[in-house]
Amino acid sequence: MVANTQIIFSKVPTGYPVIGEDITVKKTEFDLDAPLNDGEFIVKNLVLSVDPYMRGRMRDASVKSYSPPFDMNQPMTGHTMRLVIKSKSSLYPEQSYVYGLGAFEEYTKLNDQVAKAYGLVVRNDPKTNGIPLSNYVGVLGMPGMTAYAGLYKIGEIKKGETIYVSAASGAVGQLAGQIAKAQGLRVVGSAGSDEKVAHLKEIGFDGAFNYKTEDTDAKLTELCPNGIDVYFENVGGKMLEIVLTHLNTFGRIIACGMISQYNLTKAEKVGNLMNIVAKRIKFQGFIVSDYADLEPQFLADVTQMILDKKIKYRKDPEAFLDVLHGRNFGKQVVDVATP
Amino acid sequence: MVANTQIIFSKVPTGYPVIGEDITVKKTEFDLDAPLNDGEFIVKNLVLSVDPYMRGRMRDASVKSYSPPFDMNQPMTGHTMRLVIKSKSSLYPEQSYVYGLGAFEEYTKLNDQVAKAYGLVVRNDPKTNGIPLSNYVGVLGMPGMTAYAGLYKIGEIKKGETIYVSAASGAVGQLAGQIAKAQGLRVVGSAGSDEKVAHLKEIGFDGAFNYKTEDTDAKLTELCPNGIDVYFENVGGKMLEIVLTHLNTFGRIIACGMISQYNLTKAEKVGNLMNIVAKRIKFQGFIVSDYADLEPQFLADVTQMILDKKIKYRKDPEAFLDVLHGRNFGKQVVDVATP
Ligand SMILES: NC(=O)c1ccc[n+]([C@@H]2O[C@H](COP(=O)([O-])OP(=O)(O)OC[C@H]3O[C@@H](n4cnc5c(N)ncnc54)[C@H](OP(=O)(O)O)[C@@H]3O)[C@@H](O)[C@H]2O)c1
Ligand SMILES: NC(=O)c1ccc[n+]([C@@H]2O[C@H](COP(=O)([O-])OP(=O)(O)OC[C@H]3O[C@@H](n4cnc5c(N)ncnc54)[C@H](OP(=O)(O)O)[C@@H]3O)[C@@H](O)[C@H]2O)c1
Repeated sequence: MVANTQIIFSKVPTGYPVIGEDITVKKTEFDLDAPLNDGEFIVKNLVLSVDPYMRGRMRDASVKSYSPPFDMNQPMTGHTMRLVIKSKSSLYPEQSYVYGLGAFEEYTKLNDQVAKAYGLVVRNDPKTNGIPLSNYVGVLGMPGMTAYAGLYKIGEIKKGETIYVSAASGAVGQLAGQIAKAQGLRVVGSAGSDEKVAHLKEIGFDGAFNYKTEDTDAKLTELCPNGIDVYFENVGGKMLEIVLTHLNTFGRIIACGMISQYNLTKAEKVGNLMNIVAKRIKFQGFIVSDYADLEPQFLADVTQMILDKKIKYRKDPEAFLDVLHGRNFGKQVVDVATP
Repeated sequence: MVANTQIIFSKVPTGYPVIGEDITVKKTEFDLDAPLNDGEFIVKNLVLSVDPYMRGRMRDASVKSYSPPFDMNQPMTGHTMRLVIKSKSSLYPEQSYVYGLGAFEEYTKLNDQVAKAYGLVVRNDPKTNGIPLSNYVGVLGMPGMTAYAGLYKIGEIKKGETIYVSAASGAVGQLAGQIAKAQGLRVVGSAGSDEKVAHLKEIGFDGAFNYKTEDTDAKLTELCPNGIDVYFENVGGKMLEIVLTHLNTFGRIIACGMISQYNLTKAEKVGNLMNIVAKRIKFQGFIVSDYADLEPQFLADVTQMILDKKIKYRKDPEAFLDVLHGRNFGKQVVDVATP
């Protein structure tokens, strides 16, 4: 028997989730020596990904949305990198890394059927390419894929255009900006601290500002003198309202998320929407899982960009809730164990 | 000399334009007998089109928007059907009908160069096909083309889907609904009087309601039991906010106009925008003039539908400002003269 700590969804939060109430830690045990049947295997969790959409899953099961609610009193689930430590499966052999959705606990017993249903894939590249494991739930995981799909499937980005990225220092934003930069766009971003803003400039953003201390409208006028062609929308609310007045004719809004709204009990209303008609704006939402086809191309492209040092990516193994308070910087991951 | 009444833009309105202040009538004279140079011709205005976007042109010349401001103290301009009554032009011969933008006055002297710059086209079909002239500024003119372009260029309409059209009894809406119906969609519309609603049902809408006396949210639930796949957006504001909650995954919003906002000094803000992300909605604006290429196909298609009696189209030669107050019903035209 080994200790198996689990992170449990225990109550539907009002506003920001509270640790010890809405999310609780449960100590359980796991029998590493129990015999396995054919097709069964045990994974050890190495890295957990903490992402904003998880707030949406912390809801009453009767409310419909694009991703299913968490099961009450069960471990939360999210993207993970895990190591197969025992296996009677030919698909997931011992010592392979496995990427995909999983329970937030130290050890999990799985079988081929369940693993396939979750779309778990063996991803052994980090064994040889030297890229840190945590990147596989960040820049090379779901958030990276989100940036990539947004830019290429919705953004219609073109060299010479200006893109503005909100929540630019987040897991999605920092990659979106750097890919756009590599494609020859002028890239402007905003973030919520001067330290984050300095980081954005370091990783190649042409302009960046602190939306908490500076005037967004004035900064966009200054930093996007030719207007905005593409807005990578992560924030929603007042930010969107201002950006609408800076968008150019035939501009695109990549509607990726509206994080400023997730913890409000009543969402804000947004003005300036007539710009969508007058400027023929395309404002289009997407969910990364719609574009699974794009994954091989994404992995090949972005892995190469990382190896070529064209992309710098910051990740922070900080506390669980920082992500929803905006205290995180870069991709929020929880390093559970080293292989 | 003949009398030549002109409709003059004389002041930038606040809220609804006021006749006698913002728009004034000027009596002038026109010399029908003055000799013409080569390439010159005289047109007599037969039908003027009154359209919502004209409100946007009644602005201070310093404000930028997609269509240019009217010239102060000059005749307003808009879509017209005119008859060439004297001509020394080979492009616009005597007795031809001419469609396109023109000054709101009884007689106008033009020349080939100016006429080409305005994109004026000879459109003699009504001489032989029996379709009323007024239709050529309505169902077969700019508003009809708007409905057509919106459905085919933005809407991605598919047989079996549900489309909801707001301001459905207007010039654009009644055609949008009928084309969608002919394409095999379930068509639901709203309008601002019971008489208009009855008319929508008569012309083939599967469902229609009076948004002024009935609860929009409840009626959409009732009339669109499978949700809304395509929203033909003419109205904006509160209507849009409600429709967002009824749209299906991968829904489209054809952002044609937001007439409820044009006469407000401060535009309303709109909630429920997170639906755009979660439901992967495409909310896209367009301006009919972007799709000039589509015009021959549109004219051929819709002329045939009219001749086949697949389309019924109501037009109302009522007073000038009714259109902005919503008092108009069908396409608002001013019949100036008979040929
Ligand atoms: N459509 C999809 O499939 C998909 C997939 C993944 C993510 N997303 C969305 O993409 C967005 C970014 O995700 P991510 O993974 O990059 O997030 P992340 O790494 O967790 O970073 C989120 C950042 O958002 C900012 N933020 C938090 N609260 C905010 C508020 N009230 N107003 C403005 N900014 C706030 C914070 O930075 P500051 O200090 O700059 O405020 C925070 O660090 C989110 O909206 C998320 O829901 C969508
Ligand atoms: N994008 C483009 O290129 C383009 C081209 C042409 C037109 N448009 C737009 O398309 C829309 C319809 O134009 P149209 O030519 O069909 O207009 P229309 O024939 O003049 O009809 C307009 C109708 O809108 C309704 N309306 C007026 N004020 C309203 C309000 N405050 N709230 C809700 N409904 C209101 C009225 O009917 P009810 O009794 O039902 O309220 C009115 O009869 C407008 O928004 C216009 O700007 C866009």
